[in-house]
Amino acid sequence: ADLVSVADYERYAKHHIPPAIFEYIQGGGADEITLQRNRRALDDLMILPRVLQDCTAGGTHTTLLGEALRHPILLAPVAFQKLVHPQGELAMAQAASVLETGMIVSTLASESIEAIAAELDSPKWFQLYFQHSRDFTLALVKRAQAAGYTALVITVDAPLHGIRNRAQRAGFQLPKGVEAVNLKNRPPLPSQQFDASESIVFQGMMSEAPVWQDIHWLKQHTTLPIVLKGVLNPADALYAAEMGLAGVVVSNHGGRTLDCLPSAVEMLPLVRKAVGKDFPLFMDGGIQRGTDVFKALALGADAVLIGRPQLYALAVAGALGVAHMLRVLREELEVTMSLAGTPTIKDITRNALLKNNISGF
Amino acid sequence: ADLVSVADYERYAKHHIPPAIFEYIQGGGADEITLQRNRRALDDLMILPRVLQDCTAGGTHTTLLGEALRHPILLAPVAFQKLVHPQGELAMAQAASVLETGMIVSTLASESIEAIAAELDSPKWFQLYFQHSRDFTLALVKRAQAAGYTALVITVDAPLHGIRNRAQRAGFQLPKGVEAVNLKNRPPLPSQQFDASESIVFQGMMSEAPVWQDIHWLKQHTTLPIVLKGVLNPADALYAAEMGLAGVVVSNHGGRTLDCLPSAVEMLPLVRKAVGKDFPLFMDGGIQRGTDVFKALALGADAVLIGRPQLYALAVAGALGVAHMLRVLREELEVTMSLAGTPTIKDITRNALLKNNISGF
Amino acid sequence: ADLVSVADYERYAKHHIPPAIFEYIQGGGADEITLQRNRRALDDLMILPRVLQDCTAGGTHTTLLGEALRHPILLAPVAFQKLVHPQGELAMAQAASVLETGMIVSTLASESIEAIAAELDSPKWFQLYFQHSRDFTLALVKRAQAAGYTALVITVDAPLHGIRNRAQRAGFQLPKGVEAVNLKNRPPLPSQQFDASESIVFQGMMSEAPVWQDIHWLKQHTTLPIVLKGVLNPADALYAAEMGLAGVVVSNHGGRTLDCLPSAVEMLPLVRKAVGKDFPLFMDGGIQRGTDVFKALALGADAVLIGRPQLYALAVAGALGVAHMLRVLREELEVTMSLAGTPTIKDITRNALLKNNISGF
Amino acid sequence: ADLVSVADYERYAKHHIPPAIFEYIQGGGADEITLQRNRRALDDLMILPRVLQDCTAGGTHTTLLGEALRHPILLAPVAFQKLVHPQGELAMAQAASVLETGMIVSTLASESIEAIAAELDSPKWFQLYFQHSRDFTLALVKRAQAAGYTALVITVDAPLHGIRNRAQRAGFQLPKGVEAVNLKNRPPLPSQQFDASESIVFQGMMSEAPVWQDIHWLKQHTTLPIVLKGVLNPADALYAAEMGLAGVVVSNHGGRTLDCLPSAVEMLPLVRKAVGKDFPLFMDGGIQRGTDVFKALALGADAVLIGRPQLYALAVAGALGVAHMLRVLREELEVTMSLAGTPTIKDITRNALLKNNISGF
Ligand SMILES: Cc1cc2nc3c(=O)[nH]c(=O)nc-3n(C[C@H](O)[C@H](O)[C@H](O)COP(=O)(O)O)c2cc1C
Ligand SMILES: Cc1cc2nc3c(=O)[nH]c(=O)nc-3n(C[C@H](O)[C@H](O)[C@H](O)COP(=O)(O)O)c2cc1C
Ligand SMILES: Cc1cc2nc3c(=O)[nH]c(=O)nc-3n(C[C@H](O)[C@H](O)[C@H](O)COP(=O)(O)O)c2cc1C
Ligand SMILES: Cc1cc2nc3c(=O)[nH]c(=O)nc-3n(C[C@H](O)[C@H](O)[C@H](O)COP(=O)(O)O)c2cc1C
Repeated sequence: ADLVSVADYERYAKHHIPPAIFEYIQGGGADEITLQRNRRALDDLMILPRVLQDCTAGGTHTTLLGEALRHPILLAPVAFQKLVHPQGELAMAQAASVLETGMIVSTLASESIEAIAAELDSPKWFQLYFQHSRDFTLALVKRAQAAGYTALVITVDAPLHGIRNRAQRAGFQLPKGVEAVNLKNRPPLPSQQFDASESIVFQGMMSEAPVWQDIHWLKQHTTLPIVLKGVLNPADALYAAEMGLAGVVVSNHGGRTLDCLPSAVEMLPLVRKAVGKDFPLFMDGGIQRGTDVFKALALGADAVLIGRPQLYALAVAGALGVAHMLRVLREELEVTMSLAGTPTIKDITRNALLKNNISGF
Repeated sequence: ADLVSVADYERYAKHHIPPAIFEYIQGGGADEITLQRNRRALDDLMILPRVLQDCTAGGTHTTLLGEALRHPILLAPVAFQKLVHPQGELAMAQAASVLETGMIVSTLASESIEAIAAELDSPKWFQLYFQHSRDFTLALVKRAQAAGYTALVITVDAPLHGIRNRAQRAGFQLPKGVEAVNLKNRPPLPSQQFDASESIVFQGMMSEAPVWQDIHWLKQHTTLPIVLKGVLNPADALYAAEMGLAGVVVSNHGGRTLDCLPSAVEMLPLVRKAVGKDFPLFMDGGIQRGTDVFKALALGADAVLIGRPQLYALAVAGALGVAHMLRVLREELEVTMSLAGTPTIKDITRNALLKNNISGF
Repeated sequence: ADLVSVADYERYAKHHIPPAIFEYIQGGGADEITLQRNRRALDDLMILPRVLQDCTAGGTHTTLLGEALRHPILLAPVAFQKLVHPQGELAMAQAASVLETGMIVSTLASESIEAIAAELDSPKWFQLYFQHSRDFTLALVKRAQAAGYTALVITVDAPLHGIRNRAQRAGFQLPKGVEAVNLKNRPPLPSQQFDASESIVFQGMMSEAPVWQDIHWLKQHTTLPIVLKGVLNPADALYAAEMGLAGVVVSNHGGRTLDCLPSAVEMLPLVRKAVGKDFPLFMDGGIQRGTDVFKALALGADAVLIGRPQLYALAVAGALGVAHMLRVLREELEVTMSLAGTPTIKDITRNALLKNNISGF
Repeated sequence: ADLVSVADYERYAKHHIPPAIFEYIQGGGADEITLQRNRRALDDLMILPRVLQDCTAGGTHTTLLGEALRHPILLAPVAFQKLVHPQGELAMAQAASVLETGMIVSTLASESIEAIAAELDSPKWFQLYFQHSRDFTLALVKRAQAAGYTALVITVDAPLHGIRNRAQRAGFQLPKGVEAVNLKNRPPLPSQQFDASESIVFQGMMSEAPVWQDIHWLKQHTTLPIVLKGVLNPADALYAAEMGLAGVVVSNHGGRTLDCLPSAVEMLPLVRKAVGKDFPLFMDGGIQRGTDVFKALALGADAVLIGRPQLYALAVAGALGVAHMLRVLREELEVTMSLAGTPTIKDITRNALLKNNISGF
């Protein structure tokens, strides 16, 4: 009854998810400055509407990486969905199918990527965490391709976990029965020893992290289009474009890795400017309203990803909840487009936003 | 006793109006960002006064659309006034008459437009929601003209309801006995079927919405001056002026339709600049103080409309309440003009505001 | 024990003053936007210090209107001081004498101006509210001069009370025994009748208000130097300077008259620029700390006035309280000057403030 | 368990430290505007990361004043550490040694500087409060040098205590057994008398404060490198550099002396610009996160000092607590450097911060 917006799902989810897991999901890095900024930056943008436009031929249809999308809203890769619902990624895939919503399946899914693909009728892309072993990484990619995934989304902003104090304080741990099933036969890491002047961060964890060279190598070994996820710096986006990659997700990982990163939405126009008008750009972080989707598109995104709201809706009402939540979001986008006088996705340009508003974007 | 300002009526009204109705009235669209911005934008403007000016010949008198107004404050069109008082629009009209305040009667009035006109001694304008049927729309306009209404205010920012989550969560519904009596014999809508790729928003609701063409058509079929209500974009205002319309209400519908619209007051100077100095401009959204009226006039409005405060005063003390509330507002305006050293409406110009204050307006 | 700052006196005073009187004193006009801005504007200014300066010859001494002042802090004119203490202005004058603090006695004092003068050893100036009758006004001025007052401070920002909603809501009234004793034999106002198109504000109250012409006339009839109190507009200050007046108090009357006026401290640099570097400027509104005094001086004031804190200290501990409060303030100013590396009043210039800080002053 | 960040130590410390002492430590000057600004200015800065950089050779090592530092984080001089722990500075020194962290020992240490030096294996610098007697001052310096301290940090922003209202209101006093043991045989101050026009601040306390002349004199009498602590004005920093001093700590003393000083971090880029790129700059005030260290380095600091967190960790868990707190901070810095794509201290430049963000830094 009073589940009428994405925020309502968040409110309800709190009562459907064990506390430590809820903290892990809702929380962000360190002091959550970036997490808050994600919302504030969106809220500070104002829409400048046109009235009395003909919207009867309107629609949210769009095309991305060669695939037709019913709307420019995708399910972001989110690990371990069984944390909040026994059917986890399978239920998510069902909802995505019903709403014709593209789904990006995480390397850290708690169901096998083949089983998820089997439930998924809409665009399916695979999110790749590059693994220490190139062989194993390539094997994963081939599995994904074989299962029908049509694009690779390589996440590059999380070689480390980041400082997740809220989850730490709540004592979050993966419960038994929820695991990264797709990484089961991953070769063990070489054991490491550090001397006093070395660091477990640099000489330890970061020694497993991919570098541009690895992306280049992978590109040569797969026919799937590659999208980099987690780029904020316009220079990195330009580099990706020049390397021939298929797109970039402007993202700070929902404020979950390094705190004090800028919001994706404030970097978006700078990234768009750097890569030119045709390079596919995605954006995520804080999207909760049709107006948020609209703003991201107006600043240069071709589509947005939604993260946490998926889990909230899944926890509250399973596949049905996710489907309803996605429908709410799409209808809000349609209402926004109608009231802004921009009936198609192409009509949503920078002109539909107020320049120089209070926060000076 | 402690009813000394418009805000006091709001405080009291909460105890005179059933909760769901109160939420419907007070609430705005979605996250109410625009609703809050309406107030904040006004509060951020500062008045730069002149001292020791002769104010003995001062007054709030003005002329608009050829009608003499006692003060540049009008009653905005507000639907279903019986929601808060059994006499609804009739009581409102009585109060307007006593205070010599122009009243804009809504298409969605809960009393007949003729009955309201009969109670109304001051300027009476009719707010038109363009209906699907051009014939029925024109019939409404003719009825209004016959009843003595002297101007049409066509609302163009609400072809859809917008996302009114607060009202939804409170379970707001029109109670029995409160209805849009003036639309009773409206021809039924053609029944609609949508295929999977269509949308109930675009191919459904928006197919009934008026476009510029319709305004043009109506202009040719009526002698009444036409004012567009709900314009924020300077380009739309200019278009209206060039089309020969009589004026524009710069408004975001009190933050009730699309959330994340800018405040009317921040768009006002840009709109004024676009249309030149003589085109009649009205403004509404958040007006609660004489200083608010003053600021709107200083930024280019010729008059302001007040929405919610009408209902609050009506709920608290009927026609008497509205009359008192209007008197308070007028006296506050007079005090402001006196202390600012601008004794007549014409004296209130941009020079009476501080430039470049904290928020950078 | 924990009375260590001006704010502590405010906190304590709440328990020493009847509620309605406290609301009247502490409150401001309407929504108290200006009242809050007075503090915020001061708080937003940052001091840029110099280290390792020789301060042994330092001091707060200064000269104004030809009189030597122990420190550039004056007691603002404050009406009806018996509201908070039986000895009212007499106790205040004693405290002022002990701390060598100039006192500006209000036209609306609750003790006779002669009795106050008799208690006052430090500079004594008379605050004049221009009265309807020029004769009576001039008689007041002559009385003041005869009693030893050496300057006239004409308050020009309060021809009307302003909209004091907080005091109204609290039901504030002057208690029996507290009255404007110096206005006792004032000739009665001519009785007035208004027709429907007239206004009690413009044709009533404002018809008694002084205009520039009156100031000019008074200047020709007195030898006392004239300072205008309540000027914010640089153009008005310039006009006063060109007319040969002795100074101006940049002030919004402590946020008590028109709400939505800018803070005095933000207008100060603009006023200083308009009048040149030698014209005496005073400032008041929100001064509660030595750092506040310092900031006002740095932006162009020659001295500051303090209003409400007088009454708080008087209420809490009588003349002793006021003396202690003034001493705290002076010591805070001395500490500020020492730590800023500006040992004398002349050293406190614009260079001692950070330019372009967060709020953009 | 939930002690995972510096802020957690602060939270816990509240329960390990007597209230008045806690207020003294946590509090700042007057209204704590500067104290709050220290944090806000840091929080407002955003990090602009690079992805996919090779960090395997990364590390926090750096060199300052000719000494190798494991990381650019030093323990700020903090008086009277026995206030929170019986072993006071000795425990602190043990923790510093374990984490290879440089420690700056205060003139007002509650243990002898020799005893502290004996526990300290990492870089040891001596913080000097210049004393009235040049002889005694020089004797202190010689003692420090003899005990193995390798640099002098002269604090110049606290010739007076400042207005510490929070500590005053809490009734803070040094408890018995905690004293400035290193000043025990300080010659008594000459007794002073002030006439009415003099001030205990200027003619009293400030007559004991050092001036540039004294720094010059001391430089000629010691071979230790001299760093000035408490400089905010770029002109003062330039003066120090030109005088041949070894470095400057950009600092407002943790907001504990003059309130309304700007934050060190906002002055840092201006100071760096004034002194050129090679002059050693330190910064303190509000550092609580690895991201804070990173931001300070990016704006031109060579290292940062941490103040209050030392005492919080010492109070909660003694030497172990401090060691853990320092490890947390270093690991946060390493994680920040990894995720920002800047593997070494030299890589952290202005380019790693977002320009023109919301607050306009
Ligand atoms: C619980 C959770 C798990 C996530 N797991 C992954 C993941 O496995 N891979 C990935 O690239 N991003 C992951 N993300 C980040 C999301 O893809 C997305 O960038 C982020 O959630 C967007 O912000 P939002 O939650 O505000 O919509 C995860 C986010 C959350 C909240
Ligand atoms: C309860 C309610 C009903 C309204 N009904 C109408 C309406 O029927 N037609 C219309 O053009 N505007 C309508 N409005 C909008 C007002 O005309 C006006 O634009 C708005 O209330 C101004 O903002 P304010 O309420 O902050 O003064 C309505 C507003 C409210 C609060
Ligand atoms: C209770 C009260 C009475 C006042 N009476 C007078 C007055 O009689 N004449 C006048 O010029 N200003 C009067 N003022 C204004 C003060 O002179 C002064 O401008 C103001 O209080 C300064 O702001 P502050 O209270 O924040 O220091 C009064 C202020 C207060 C609070
Ligand atoms: C309790 C306490 C005692 C201090 N004692 C000294 C001192 O003796 N000498 C000095 O130069 N600074 C002293 N400081 C200031 C610190 O060196 C440092 O500048 C400040 O604490 C940095 O801010 P932070 O506490 O936010 O990190 C002291 C600070 C505190 C909190």
